[in-house]
Amino acid sequence: MTRPVAFLSDFGFSVYVGVVKGVILSLCPGARIVDLTHMVTPFAVREGAWYLLSSYSYFPEGTIFLAVVDPGVGGPRQPLAIRTQRYYFVGPDNGLLFPAAEEDGIEEVFALHRHLGASRTFEARDVFAPAVARLARGELLTSLGRPTTIETRLRFHRRGREGEVVVIDSFGNIITNLHPLPGANCYRLRSATGVEITLPYYSTYPEAPKEELFLTTGSAGTLEIALREGRAADLLPLSPGTIVELVATNLLP
Amino acid sequence: MTRPVAFLSDFGFSVYVGVVKGVILSLCPGARIVDLTHMVTPFAVREGAWYLLSSYSYFPEGTIFLAVVDPGVGGPRQPLAIRTQRYYFVGPDNGLLFPAAEEDGIEEVFALHRHLGASRTFEARDVFAPAVARLARGELLTSLGRPTTIETRLRFHRRGREGEVVVIDSFGNIITNLHPLPGANCYRLRSATGVEITLPYYSTYPEAPKEELFLTTGSAGTLEIALREGRAADLLPLSPGTIVELVATNLLP
Amino acid sequence: MTRPVAFLSDFGFSVYVGVVKGVILSLCPGARIVDLTHMVTPFAVREGAWYLLSSYSYFPEGTIFLAVVDPGVGGPRQPLAIRTQRYYFVGPDNGLLFPAAEEDGIEEVFALHRHLGASRTFEARDVFAPAVARLARGELLTSLGRPTTIETRLRFHRRGREGEVVVIDSFGNIITNLHPLPGANCYRLRSATGVEITLPYYSTYPEAPKEELFLTTGSAGTLEIALREGRAADLLPLSPGTIVELVATNLLP
Repeated sequence: MTRPVAFLSDFGFSVYVGVVKGVILSLCPGARIVDLTHMVTPFAVREGAWYLLSSYSYFPEGTIFLAVVDPGVGGPRQPLAIRTQRYYFVGPDNGLLFPAAEEDGIEEVFALHRHLGASRTFEARDVFAPAVARLARGELLTSLGRPTTIETRLRFHRRGREGEVVVIDSFGNIITNLHPLPGANCYRLRSATGVEITLPYYSTYPEAPKEELFLTTGSAGTLEIALREGRAADLLPLSPGTIVELVATNLLP
Repeated sequence: MTRPVAFLSDFGFSVYVGVVKGVILSLCPGARIVDLTHMVTPFAVREGAWYLLSSYSYFPEGTIFLAVVDPGVGGPRQPLAIRTQRYYFVGPDNGLLFPAAEEDGIEEVFALHRHLGASRTFEARDVFAPAVARLARGELLTSLGRPTTIETRLRFHRRGREGEVVVIDSFGNIITNLHPLPGANCYRLRSATGVEITLPYYSTYPEAPKEELFLTTGSAGTLEIALREGRAADLLPLSPGTIVELVATNLLP
Repeated sequence: MTRPVAFLSDFGFSVYVGVVKGVILSLCPGARIVDLTHMVTPFAVREGAWYLLSSYSYFPEGTIFLAVVDPGVGGPRQPLAIRTQRYYFVGPDNGLLFPAAEEDGIEEVFALHRHLGASRTFEARDVFAPAVARLARGELLTSLGRPTTIETRLRFHRRGREGEVVVIDSFGNIITNLHPLPGANCYRLRSATGVEITLPYYSTYPEAPKEELFLTTGSAGTLEIALREGRAADLLPLSPGTIVELVATNLLP
């Protein structure tokens, strides 16, 4: 059986997604390709990096992650293939792959070869997809390029109780990279953009009162601001990258 | 070959869809997973239930339907696995699975075990996906939980010529659960929300005049209000759950 | 191994996509189905035809393209199955399949049988999907219908340096069917809708200044109007079908 492929991009289920799969299937007919998501906000490298970081470990060992959010496509940034302790990561050297690869433990890094006719605007098809197909067939990284080191080492901000908004999800939840504190039922939130608000914490949605913002622990194990059957992100001026502080105060407002 | 999996949710092709597939592939490497749809309106259990009801029978016998539209996630509602005459249904006990499962003939119902570390906000990943993977591998329901009975028995309203709007589809068609009457070429529609209108019936789109609302028989065999190359739902105040009456009157207005 | 299936439609990842796959899997359990895209603008046959034309050749030989953008569903237009030199194309005879099939070289054309109970509004499920499943299993076209000729021969406009806008992609790029001229670094664009503008040409995104429209060579090898990390289509009144002229002028404005 071939190594599974998980594909993340900001292509939005356009034809570009299908074409990349066509190339992979052409070179590896038995490929098993799963869409991780293609709904990353266009060009939002940090958002893509968070999705990859919070998702990769749920995939089978040996999975190849093809991740493409690439505003610098065609430019000097390196096209990478990384082997970590349990996985492979293929995509641009712009920070997108780094948090997940670093967490899993980087073993080998290669800069992919580009062939002469490769498109300068669609390297996902002409550079990344062929490399993924060859890894899926069981080839080694050494056949795909030359050894290199990662240049862009994106890290999410976290210092004590200060972190950042990492993504707004499809339900309008505002997801941070800060972990909950055991036993805390209330937090004071302050943001670099001037938000100051006290929010109750509930461990499940059904416990929260309707039409009231609250904090809960999201799928990545971090704090997120939610609204039952509504979109929290429509009510607070917090967006990905905003620095936030979340301090537990066990007094409800 | 493993049992096929069909996956319906309100996750909107977010990363949540991909992660659930990653978990299934981790436990069942040969899994064949098809997306039924993830574009159910967030939290719209009735809409999801209709999509499942009108779609399930087109899948191969033995298919496992993983269906997650779950505003009560983490709460007391049961996580279910149902075996029917020809299929399996896995998801929350909030009505979502009931119409399809009942129509196919319910044989066995189990409440799924939750393991201690399971997320309270992402049970699709931690409770439902592992159960689906084990069913896909051929395990029995008895290994997944304890026998139970279904608590929420959602039924779509229908009494004579009175039914309900069940969904607005991606083309803006207003779909009801009422069947057409043989030979009728015109219907009077009345809704609980005050709409009174007479609509011609055409069995195909090309027969209908442009820019005029009409009734036709949709993919589920029920009446739907359509507009050629336009969105009927933008012109009439009818939304899912609205009670409507559709009486045949063979007189065009 | 079965022949791969690539599926393009304007169904928008609705349940209709899933149901079509269910039918294919029912008749061909080992089917490998890849979504080419389902985000074609509803009823936009030309747009779908362009996506198919610019994508098909990246798929493995023997791939069956199921393409459904079908405002005339249920009407007299023929349901087609076409065998070309390297591929199969299944869909309505409204121009959608023609440019790709013609480019690859048409070998055989059949009009599909309709069975009596087939839906008049969802022929993708009842007419096209069963034909695709049988081709995927290795059946011959002759078993699916009767020999016919293609009626609608859609061609994209191109005469000298005059062509057309073929699609707006998910990034807001305005894609034309005109090829770049070697060495040209600037073009004058004129449209039938009154646009007159001079645009610089850059072969990659990172070379272009931010917040300025430019031309580049897109994934199909044709000229497209782009904006770094923005949507060009929001700034110019050009839409699919607009006739444009792009003349090289090696003088930047």
